[in-house]
Amino acid sequence: MEEGKIRVGITHGDINGVGYEVILKTFSDPSMLELCTPIIYGSPKVAAYHRKTMDIQTNFSIINSASEAQDGRVNIVNCIDDELKVELTRPTQEAGKAALSALEAGLEEYREGLFDVLVTAPINKHTIQSDSFHFPGHTEYIEERVGEGQKALMILLKGDFRIALVTGHVPVAEIANHLTKELIMEKIAIFHRSLKKDFGIDCPRIAVLALNPHAGDGGLIGKEEQEIIIPAINEMIAKGIQCFGPYPADGFMGAGNYRYFDGVLAMYHDQGLAPFKALAMDEGVNFTAGLPIVRTSPAHGTAYDIAGQGIASEDSFRQAIYVALDVYRNRCIEEEISARPLRKQYYEKRDDSDKLKLDSIDEE
Amino acid sequence: MEEGKIRVGITHGDINGVGYEVILKTFSDPSMLELCTPIIYGSPKVAAYHRKTMDIQTNFSIINSASEAQDGRVNIVNCIDDELKVELTRPTQEAGKAALSALEAGLEEYREGLFDVLVTAPINKHTIQSDSFHFPGHTEYIEERVGEGQKALMILLKGDFRIALVTGHVPVAEIANHLTKELIMEKIAIFHRSLKKDFGIDCPRIAVLALNPHAGDGGLIGKEEQEIIIPAINEMIAKGIQCFGPYPADGFMGAGNYRYFDGVLAMYHDQGLAPFKALAMDEGVNFTAGLPIVRTSPAHGTAYDIAGQGIASEDSFRQAIYVALDVYRNRCIEEEISARPLRKQYYEKRDDSDKLKLDSIDEE
Repeated sequence: MEEGKIRVGITHGDINGVGYEVILKTFSDPSMLELCTPIIYGSPKVAAYHRKTMDIQTNFSIINSASEAQDGRVNIVNCIDDELKVELTRPTQEAGKAALSALEAGLEEYREGLFDVLVTAPINKHTIQSDSFHFPGHTEYIEERVGEGQKALMILLKGDFRIALVTGHVPVAEIANHLTKELIMEKIAIFHRSLKKDFGIDCPRIAVLALNPHAGDGGLIGKEEQEIIIPAINEMIAKGIQCFGPYPADGFMGAGNYRYFDGVLAMYHDQGLAPFKALAMDEGVNFTAGLPIVRTSPAHGTAYDIAGQGIASEDSFRQAIYVALDVYRNRCIEEEISARPLRKQYYEKRDDSDKLKLDSIDEE
Repeated sequence: MEEGKIRVGITHGDINGVGYEVILKTFSDPSMLELCTPIIYGSPKVAAYHRKTMDIQTNFSIINSASEAQDGRVNIVNCIDDELKVELTRPTQEAGKAALSALEAGLEEYREGLFDVLVTAPINKHTIQSDSFHFPGHTEYIEERVGEGQKALMILLKGDFRIALVTGHVPVAEIANHLTKELIMEKIAIFHRSLKKDFGIDCPRIAVLALNPHAGDGGLIGKEEQEIIIPAINEMIAKGIQCFGPYPADGFMGAGNYRYFDGVLAMYHDQGLAPFKALAMDEGVNFTAGLPIVRTSPAHGTAYDIAGQGIASEDSFRQAIYVALDVYRNRCIEEEISARPLRKQYYEKRDDSDKLKLDSIDEE
């Protein structure tokens, strides 16, 4: 692990929503600066406006680049035109542009290695659209810009309750068409890898939800369980991955069975997110698994309806920082462990190059 | 309202599950008998077996028909072959047959007016199938047998959180095809009537969930919101019914917005039931709205996995009785109120027959 604090890049998101409020509230607690060094990509003027409007006691230092960031301080990189107008509670093109500018500046400095993990405040997915942003959301944008060809998987989590989706922003009429054995297997594989590497779970257990009510009830209510989901689960089991199901979503959530698994894979958006948010909205965190970058965000959106009132809870944003730090540390540990592997000491079939050598046991 | 206690017909459901356990536990509390008179359609032998196995202190009286039922006692109508074999935790054809016999005996006596409300213990939907039972569940069976041509709407509720579905046991691939404006309007109408009549809510507010993620996001993720759901809502509003939406299911549940409505109408099974059960499984009650009969059941199933261990919670079953009693009382009040309406004393346009007659105000 590096010397010094973990550096957290933070993009300010939509300036007319609760973004600055939850960022500033989170860092009004001085102990946060003992855990990490925040570098906010945004506007000191807008930050000051929010701070004054809601009377939040958080001081910050203005810098030109993360390379100037100091530990023990809340650093803000000014990357927005100073004429920016805040219109609390309203979606504006100007705010969309400012959200994108911060995101671009942040990812640029991430590429230069100037910070370790990224936490994004909520954007408005409509106003941010432009020539250089034509994505359904943060996840896809980040996947393209700094994904290095890897596929992202959005995991929503609160504590040990982690849920991921096979299909995302897909109309209900097309969900079944989108589902393939390969897609489910791909998602299970990314989920499994992330649970191991990012969450430090040695042999993670993944629950797979059914597509249809009552898991298809033996084929009476849809055949996807038999034809797609069960074969996918079986193939992954054959590869040594512990996955189980398919479980009917309502009973699974009702019985609280997610407590017995490290991850839950839902087949589609509302199936996973409606019960997850019902149970865990306040402290829910969105983690983008599968990419080289560690990126999290709070589970809530811009929350225009309460923007500027000082009543937004920063719990979810604070948790997003905690998760980012945890994942970063887990990855460092993983790297450390696997950097100098012990030489194999057991006999492996079909691998003549690496046979058991009892006389070499004490070598290292 | 009638003299004497409200008579609650109870069908014993699957004898290998937790049915008898939750029934007997509920009536082990003597104060329950001050609220109502239970008439269990089942088998005294099987009841005694469960009572002994789990050491539950509930006495009961064996009768031949509800006409012999006494207030202050737990009455059991013996309607099953005495040779019935209990195989705890196992689905058996014998148990399926016994569940159906109790249901048939119960509905027969309901038709004769021998009890007021029906509470059903969980059945196994597979083993109960036979020549006279070929339904997805209780609701459809009861609708056909004693529905008098009315359409049933299943409402799941806990306290003031009430949720109903537009489509039920439908494969996800076919949900969108099933949805029509007329179907949604029909469900809203039944829901609205039930909230008024059965729950005594004067001017109920109904939230309608969207079909697609993010309510279709302005048509980007499906068009059913614009083409079907919003027109249905608007037509119902034009008829004077307070309905709102469509709301994206995840945010709606996450923000706890169901608290601001008297009822929530979900578009399909998992969308409604996964978050509902996640939040309210333990005390959830299933109420069959829309029919002349008042029928409730606990939200849980046969729970074979814990049958016979004495650890099943009777909370949901007890709540099912409470809800049945409440609905019965509300309907009685409604009938009483509307039995002798006051003559109209105001001037109505387009109705010359019923003009304001000030000189007749004191007539009644």
